[in-house]
Amino acid sequence: MFKAGIIGATGYAGAELLRLLLAHPHVEVAALSSVSFEGQVIADVYPAFTGACSLPLLSQDEVINQCQVIFAALPHGLSEPLARRCLSEQKLFIDLGADFRLDDADVYARWYGESYQDPALHALSVYGLCELFREDIGTSFIVGNPGCYPTATALGLAPALEADLVNPTSLIVDAKSGVTGAGRGLSQNTHFPDCNEAFAPYKIADHRHTPEMEQTLSKVAGTSVSLTFVPHLLPVNRGILATIYADLKSDPPLSQMHALYIDRYKDEPFVQVLPLGAVANLRDVKYSNCCHISLHKDEHTRRLIIVSAIDNMIKGAAGQAIQNMNIALSLPEITGLPLVSPSF
Amino acid sequence: MFKAGIIGATGYAGAELLRLLLAHPHVEVAALSSVSFEGQVIADVYPAFTGACSLPLLSQDEVINQCQVIFAALPHGLSEPLARRCLSEQKLFIDLGADFRLDDADVYARWYGESYQDPALHALSVYGLCELFREDIGTSFIVGNPGCYPTATALGLAPALEADLVNPTSLIVDAKSGVTGAGRGLSQNTHFPDCNEAFAPYKIADHRHTPEMEQTLSKVAGTSVSLTFVPHLLPVNRGILATIYADLKSDPPLSQMHALYIDRYKDEPFVQVLPLGAVANLRDVKYSNCCHISLHKDEHTRRLIIVSAIDNMIKGAAGQAIQNMNIALSLPEITGLPLVSPSF
Amino acid sequence: MFKAGIIGATGYAGAELLRLLLAHPHVEVAALSSVSFEGQVIADVYPAFTGACSLPLLSQDEVINQCQVIFAALPHGLSEPLARRCLSEQKLFIDLGADFRLDDADVYARWYGESYQDPALHALSVYGLCELFREDIGTSFIVGNPGCYPTATALGLAPALEADLVNPTSLIVDAKSGVTGAGRGLSQNTHFPDCNEAFAPYKIADHRHTPEMEQTLSKVAGTSVSLTFVPHLLPVNRGILATIYADLKSDPPLSQMHALYIDRYKDEPFVQVLPLGAVANLRDVKYSNCCHISLHKDEHTRRLIIVSAIDNMIKGAAGQAIQNMNIALSLPEITGLPLVSPSF
Amino acid sequence: MFKAGIIGATGYAGAELLRLLLAHPHVEVAALSSVSFEGQVIADVYPAFTGACSLPLLSQDEVINQCQVIFAALPHGLSEPLARRCLSEQKLFIDLGADFRLDDADVYARWYGESYQDPALHALSVYGLCELFREDIGTSFIVGNPGCYPTATALGLAPALEADLVNPTSLIVDAKSGVTGAGRGLSQNTHFPDCNEAFAPYKIADHRHTPEMEQTLSKVAGTSVSLTFVPHLLPVNRGILATIYADLKSDPPLSQMHALYIDRYKDEPFVQVLPLGAVANLRDVKYSNCCHISLHKDEHTRRLIIVSAIDNMIKGAAGQAIQNMNIALSLPEITGLPLVSPSF
Repeated sequence: MFKAGIIGATGYAGAELLRLLLAHPHVEVAALSSVSFEGQVIADVYPAFTGACSLPLLSQDEVINQCQVIFAALPHGLSEPLARRCLSEQKLFIDLGADFRLDDADVYARWYGESYQDPALHALSVYGLCELFREDIGTSFIVGNPGCYPTATALGLAPALEADLVNPTSLIVDAKSGVTGAGRGLSQNTHFPDCNEAFAPYKIADHRHTPEMEQTLSKVAGTSVSLTFVPHLLPVNRGILATIYADLKSDPPLSQMHALYIDRYKDEPFVQVLPLGAVANLRDVKYSNCCHISLHKDEHTRRLIIVSAIDNMIKGAAGQAIQNMNIALSLPEITGLPLVSPSF
Repeated sequence: MFKAGIIGATGYAGAELLRLLLAHPHVEVAALSSVSFEGQVIADVYPAFTGACSLPLLSQDEVINQCQVIFAALPHGLSEPLARRCLSEQKLFIDLGADFRLDDADVYARWYGESYQDPALHALSVYGLCELFREDIGTSFIVGNPGCYPTATALGLAPALEADLVNPTSLIVDAKSGVTGAGRGLSQNTHFPDCNEAFAPYKIADHRHTPEMEQTLSKVAGTSVSLTFVPHLLPVNRGILATIYADLKSDPPLSQMHALYIDRYKDEPFVQVLPLGAVANLRDVKYSNCCHISLHKDEHTRRLIIVSAIDNMIKGAAGQAIQNMNIALSLPEITGLPLVSPSF
Repeated sequence: MFKAGIIGATGYAGAELLRLLLAHPHVEVAALSSVSFEGQVIADVYPAFTGACSLPLLSQDEVINQCQVIFAALPHGLSEPLARRCLSEQKLFIDLGADFRLDDADVYARWYGESYQDPALHALSVYGLCELFREDIGTSFIVGNPGCYPTATALGLAPALEADLVNPTSLIVDAKSGVTGAGRGLSQNTHFPDCNEAFAPYKIADHRHTPEMEQTLSKVAGTSVSLTFVPHLLPVNRGILATIYADLKSDPPLSQMHALYIDRYKDEPFVQVLPLGAVANLRDVKYSNCCHISLHKDEHTRRLIIVSAIDNMIKGAAGQAIQNMNIALSLPEITGLPLVSPSF
Repeated sequence: MFKAGIIGATGYAGAELLRLLLAHPHVEVAALSSVSFEGQVIADVYPAFTGACSLPLLSQDEVINQCQVIFAALPHGLSEPLARRCLSEQKLFIDLGADFRLDDADVYARWYGESYQDPALHALSVYGLCELFREDIGTSFIVGNPGCYPTATALGLAPALEADLVNPTSLIVDAKSGVTGAGRGLSQNTHFPDCNEAFAPYKIADHRHTPEMEQTLSKVAGTSVSLTFVPHLLPVNRGILATIYADLKSDPPLSQMHALYIDRYKDEPFVQVLPLGAVANLRDVKYSNCCHISLHKDEHTRRLIIVSAIDNMIKGAAGQAIQNMNIALSLPEITGLPLVSPSF
């Protein structure tokens, strides 16, 4: 049994991590921290844990002291010192925030408004999009867990870019996220009557996940990729669905591109390329660690349309973090992760 | 008072027409028909009408007999004989179905799988997208009321195409509709537990509203427009929001394009171009006859992004039908139509 | 045209009043106030008003200065000085808060934790539950607009208590409210992911509307009524549905009690007693000023079960306030009020 | 590993059973049947199973042939011959339908409109409400899995009735269920736009779960219990919350009754009696096998108010069925069952 702890256990990602880790057969959750609720127990914040977890909410230091695997689910800008300490103590640090996602310090500074404090640290970290960079993950004590939108987008586009099927500057990602993506903090926009029976985009062509997507896709394409990214707030709790538009370089039949996708992901337990004719739906991935991908072609305008759906809190956050832990600890990759979504 | 009647009063569009017409100060609802519920009263189907409307559900012939203005809310393929009869009796016929939307009989046949039975009739009809073709509307006894997606899309794109700002073959329309758009008929996809907490596109690059959009936009652009159209089913009752992507021909500042839109719609009571920085939301148009439009620019990829939102049942169906009636009858255009959405 | 103004125009009840008053044929909305948004316009807070209302948000004094009818939609405890001033200037003051609902100063103090500052004022006010106390309403410049739960409950129970059908100490009111009932202010409980796909009671047997219900029902019963009241938060925007349980004193057939209800409300445009077998649903009253009532009997336990549904923001707040204004100004009672709910 | 099969795998309860059983460490799902989809695979019906289960949908006979544990999730009236065969082959048969819930053949006939075909069989079956009748469960090859409403109600009321705290003829159960409770079959009432933003009771004082509740509660009370039961359809996917009203026989302090409940369920992993002041919410039990109970007292009317919440598809159906299997097979009772609800 590995001792795992969560720094920032009372945010949505932290709570979801806790729920999944409590059911993980090779993990003992040993310590939790929370700045806002230090001294309380998690069931005071989330009554769902009543009877299932009585750990007190401690300080961040206590979590590192008591654990071998540390998950941090914090706002950006707070993870570097924690990662530094874990590295020095040879403990696995998996960061669910944005601090270890971007390679280029200038890009980080431009989008996040502040610079890396400990630039050397970043070269020692890996980016944990498991299906694309699995080989890297075991090689570092610091894993940057990908953003939710970048996960859905990169899994959807990678095979097409790897195979040079589409124009890498033609990409448009129209993505829709459930409200848990906005976190537990209150805002007018997530107040139920403002959000229910409502729908709108936000941060249009201005979302911080844009450079993360471009970085990953440029790597898989082997060339510079630029895209237009527009996220929308969807009145559901869970899930991200990205509808991705790409101009085809030539005019291959859809069946051929579909075969390529099927082949690309044939060994991936968490990526399902749906049969031709089916359409990915966030209904079918919610509460699971899976990514559903469906492929479509607009014959009329010669565009490839890719639909990619994940649960933003699981494959887009806590689940992928555990998948990264499983890889780093050489456990079977699917251990403790939900493979089948409850369809309703 | 004009005597108005509704053929197909028990579908969603018919019921919405009835609700709005009952509050219209210059209309008396004189007759209703329904194939499924003939002989019953509307409150048997929609209890909301209890105490407010006790008209029996009659035959289609009875509606035409008793009324001067006839609205038809029927599946496609059923309106031609009704329109022919209204024309011969010089009664106003407003068709909420698809039979009088497409000019080109071949296009209709290709998308709807059957041919016009009475081709001559179509040349005598007008297409009632009020803000774009207002001058035509009073000139005919037959009005084809636009589809919901085409209304949102055409209002959003018209100024940009009229001003030749964007590449007319670069257009991508990613649209999301509330479930009333699927009608009152039952289907697995609209069964609550299959549809709630779910989200997916459907009829990807294969929706019958595509040629209607291309027809309208080609007219306003003065050149052939082609687009990729992907509709999605949104777990809300009401509303359509279209996120529209267009490659800019040159690189005008957003403020200049915004000024153009403001000017284009300055006299339109039902179209609001939002201030720069605001984002159209279907929350703010639901249950009104308004279209909210917001403009955005991806400086990085030089694309114009237009967000256009309407209530699919009102501006996208029953409300625009009444707006067409008001125009045709020379009533003030806003009569009997809701200008302000309840925000919650 | 009467000049009307709203004090507290940016809360949900204030915004709903504004929307309805803008469409009222005998009212000009002359002034609005807001403490939080003074100096802005309402469309800054509710984009739905874009293009429809450009009044600036002023001070409370300005509203009274400029108007003949003043609606106040404020937290409790703030209305007495405003009412005093309106009274002295012979202006109609309709209070949507709790300050003029309870006759007994001690009861108010016990439930609201503070005393009336101006006790003499209360004797001069009337309680505006239109269908039960219509005769009183025109007699005062100060109207206490009823609470949402008391409106649904009192309309549902009044005929049974007037006719002495049920035991007045056996009453149980299990009520469910849409989230707009909690207002525009943020709270964890109304944060979308905490509230969506969730359901629970709150303030169990401890809600401030309890004494208001008992006061009204005791009046109509002519004897002291006590009840158990449990409200629940329902994941919808609008509506209150109360399921009311009462022990029958004798064993009348349901049809006889139904006939009594039908007769009691036969002249009320906003109260519909549904046919036997039908069930009141908040779907069918939302966005209208109506109250739907259905009657049922548990033959097995000899209880009368009454289901009463209203829109909490309209019949339960802004709509009833306008109905009170119509009565006080001798306008036709239904003027400017929605009679038919959009069923979807 | 036990070989388990599901008869009726494509209904909601069947699909939920399959999902949970696929993750059960001591079960191999060996066969599935479906009348409607025989010959297809489950992923054709529920895409969530893509990649996770490729079993074909067979006949009912095949399921019994191939399995040691047979779950049936069928409409009532179809399980007796299956149970008879399982009994004769000494296979465990767990029936999620209504056929083995009622002891009294007359009561069954009165509520279900048809008689038991094989009355002798029923005496050999047990009623699987685990926390109340655990000792019985291992003694029979036939287990009648309780209804969802009876599970929530009986767990909520049992301690109070066992301790003779409340008047057994005063009980009122006002229950609210998510829409999955209505099953996968289509109906106007569960059509999204008719059901979303709607709320109403149904089968008022006329639901078939009433006699099941009275049977169970009479057993635990040791006296005849009668109650008024009113279910409501809640616009959420999952969960049942029952608000239960009971007249107290004397006037014990709430803390004393709470202590009694805490003690009664202290060894039950799936029943959490919440701390005083907390309120059970279906948010906190959905997707888990737990029942949350909170206790409240109306001091004014001297009533005990019990709030009991479960997931209707898990503790109210598939989860309790697996809990019954675990007990019958002498596996640890919590094996394979979710203890912690995702709070969002």
